[in-house]
Amino acid sequence: MTFLIDETHDAALRSWIESANGHLDFPIQNLPLGIFSSPDGRPRPGVAIGDFILDLQKIANLLPAVAARTLDGSTLNALFALPATERRALRHVLSRLLSRTEYSATIEPALLATVDCVMHPPAAIGDYTDFYVGIHHATNIGKQFRPDNPLLPNYKHIPIGYHGRASSIRVSGIDVVRPKGQRKSADEESPSYGPSRRLDYELELGVWIGRGNLLGEPISIAEAPEHIVGLCLLNDWSARDLQAWEYQPLGPFLAKNFHTTVSPWVITAEALAPYRIAQPRRAPGDPDPLPYLLDSEDQARGALAIDLEVSLTTAHMRASGLDPHRLSTGSASNMYWTIAQMVTHHSSNGCDLQPGDLLGTGTISAPDPGGYGSLMELSRGGAMPIALPGDETRTFLEDGDEIILTARAMAPGRVALGFGHAKARILPSRAS
Amino acid sequence: MTFLIDETHDAALRSWIESANGHLDFPIQNLPLGIFSSPDGRPRPGVAIGDFILDLQKIANLLPAVAARTLDGSTLNALFALPATERRALRHVLSRLLSRTEYSATIEPALLATVDCVMHPPAAIGDYTDFYVGIHHATNIGKQFRPDNPLLPNYKHIPIGYHGRASSIRVSGIDVVRPKGQRKSADEESPSYGPSRRLDYELELGVWIGRGNLLGEPISIAEAPEHIVGLCLLNDWSARDLQAWEYQPLGPFLAKNFHTTVSPWVITAEALAPYRIAQPRRAPGDPDPLPYLLDSEDQARGALAIDLEVSLTTAHMRASGLDPHRLSTGSASNMYWTIAQMVTHHSSNGCDLQPGDLLGTGTISAPDPGGYGSLMELSRGGAMPIALPGDETRTFLEDGDEIILTARAMAPGRVALGFGHAKARILPSRAS
Repeated sequence: MTFLIDETHDAALRSWIESANGHLDFPIQNLPLGIFSSPDGRPRPGVAIGDFILDLQKIANLLPAVAARTLDGSTLNALFALPATERRALRHVLSRLLSRTEYSATIEPALLATVDCVMHPPAAIGDYTDFYVGIHHATNIGKQFRPDNPLLPNYKHIPIGYHGRASSIRVSGIDVVRPKGQRKSADEESPSYGPSRRLDYELELGVWIGRGNLLGEPISIAEAPEHIVGLCLLNDWSARDLQAWEYQPLGPFLAKNFHTTVSPWVITAEALAPYRIAQPRRAPGDPDPLPYLLDSEDQARGALAIDLEVSLTTAHMRASGLDPHRLSTGSASNMYWTIAQMVTHHSSNGCDLQPGDLLGTGTISAPDPGGYGSLMELSRGGAMPIALPGDETRTFLEDGDEIILTARAMAPGRVALGFGHAKARILPSRAS
Repeated sequence: MTFLIDETHDAALRSWIESANGHLDFPIQNLPLGIFSSPDGRPRPGVAIGDFILDLQKIANLLPAVAARTLDGSTLNALFALPATERRALRHVLSRLLSRTEYSATIEPALLATVDCVMHPPAAIGDYTDFYVGIHHATNIGKQFRPDNPLLPNYKHIPIGYHGRASSIRVSGIDVVRPKGQRKSADEESPSYGPSRRLDYELELGVWIGRGNLLGEPISIAEAPEHIVGLCLLNDWSARDLQAWEYQPLGPFLAKNFHTTVSPWVITAEALAPYRIAQPRRAPGDPDPLPYLLDSEDQARGALAIDLEVSLTTAHMRASGLDPHRLSTGSASNMYWTIAQMVTHHSSNGCDLQPGDLLGTGTISAPDPGGYGSLMELSRGGAMPIALPGDETRTFLEDGDEIILTARAMAPGRVALGFGHAKARILPSRAS
């Protein structure tokens, strides 16, 4: 029931909106939810279909009543708070309305060209937590910070996570101001304050939380999928020099909280049902998860067949008409823990999750350098510059650079679903 | 101007509400702000005066118009967002209304007995950040986790902080469910999941943020006081066994986010003006703060003359009619960094603070054991049980224990201002 595959996923299903058929991101099998505004209106809920956005407020009378009642505001928090069955009912109606030609005359007036719209955060984010479940990233970074001890003893027992900053999360397209902060390299006697010299991105998936739990009442691993609304792309911008100097003993703080970029569309758990795969086998000798993190359904279908990609353009590349340069590709199956395990662990002490909370997976790197999810890994901590088209190199990000994250869910016999993108450009630090 | 002392602070000022005169917490010089409800009404803004709460919505027509317009909801966020001058104007009017007998007939209908009311969080908390500025605590704890390295090299350069969980913050009086979690003692081969065996409190001050800043635009140290609305007591409940096992490399997470208790009244920055003192001299050889953290006014009057106290009652003590046992007393002047330095550092990378954000100072311990701000310090990590009245001992908290935090601002020639209290009782873990 949780990961139910049905006629809305059928690869043969087509929309009467022609641009949806074969669309890289938003075919009719996707139906992602988001908040958009057009020049003539305030932010409101919509669904991406091909090159259009369907205005849900305009067709509220055609939607299931329970879901329709949550759609009159400028966030999706109220929809997220509903039981997953209500979101499934909404998906089924949307799939029918957008596939059957007899509805086209009714629906067409509620469609807006995506290029004319601006996207907003899908929800008011109460709390944001970033995990660290990309085991290859944890190993790579661990080697640089703690050469003798890359993976700490707790890593294979605990989905390690920490709290991030909710206020500084922005949707794709909003520029990132290079942060200032304290940094002290090994050869400096004392720290100084100024613009970060080692600005980096991190390729992550974001997880939107649906129904919450009461304080003191953990979410069991079997129930966890019911609390997960969907996914997005997440760029956890990181100032490595600030991080190295500040992170002991309480973890990253100003190195991370200056800006986080998310893609605006919520790729729903319902849409992703056909792209579930078995949790990759743990390495021989790895400990079993403790019982509160172990569930046969989660082991069998808790991981995700999602391909991830990072591209870069520089100011020079754009001025020269060069295409974005692909920095890495990898798979979300490189997560050591499933999303359900993240949710269950987070609430296992009674911590209350709320609709609209956001979790990050942590950087997802593949085992090979072609799949490293950050410049810190790709440039070996800045030691190995990366060659770019147009005769440039990079170790870390320079002003004017733009990072573009994309993702596609893929499965045999299924249409691929795209995530849209999370992109943003680096602006110089402000003069103070 | 920032720390302006005026007639509202005059020790000779008296209220026509007799219980206010000589009141331990809420004399007319205090006038703290909060959100309360009475049996017949929804949560709304009020001011504590003696044994009463003044309902601000009922006297809105007597208040300055700008502030009055922010008081019609069930949080103080809109009031917090105003310039500090508007809060000062409100304080002056409240002081007049509650001191001059001619207003008593007008005001009395808007007074409710505090004992008949329930308190609520003063604001919707967007983000919560916990600092670590209690240097004696940092040293004591550091010795237990890192015997060779109690204070890390960054401590005297950076007001160390990390993000906490906003959703699980509760006001005084709400029970704390003992968290479960993963713990592994040194002599255990692998971790297990179950109720925390080393549950602790932490004595902190909370800082309510007023006006925010735009993303990318730091708050200078000179401007920082304008962004601080006031203070409260904060108990950062901590599960030491969960903490020891989970905290590397990204800091505390589930060890802290199961519950945080705050006192409900906001003791305003305006009220605290006379209790400002010079930042205690740094030890010889300590580095100067970097220029962005250095301000002559902050050095001269950025610290706080506030006495702090922690008391404990056990179920047995309460059943035996024994008084609460005082565990420690200390002073807020044991903070190595000022609150203005915390605010400025937090925003120094461009991170956007918002009205209603909450900062914790971190545990404030005095140098001597009589002023240690946690059981982890008082019991030397559990090695030295503390003797209690009624023939009990404690290393960490047991079910039924209640912790009570109190504080008083004190200055020569001034009336003392109390903070009320932050108290809560430990309930057993839920059966799973």
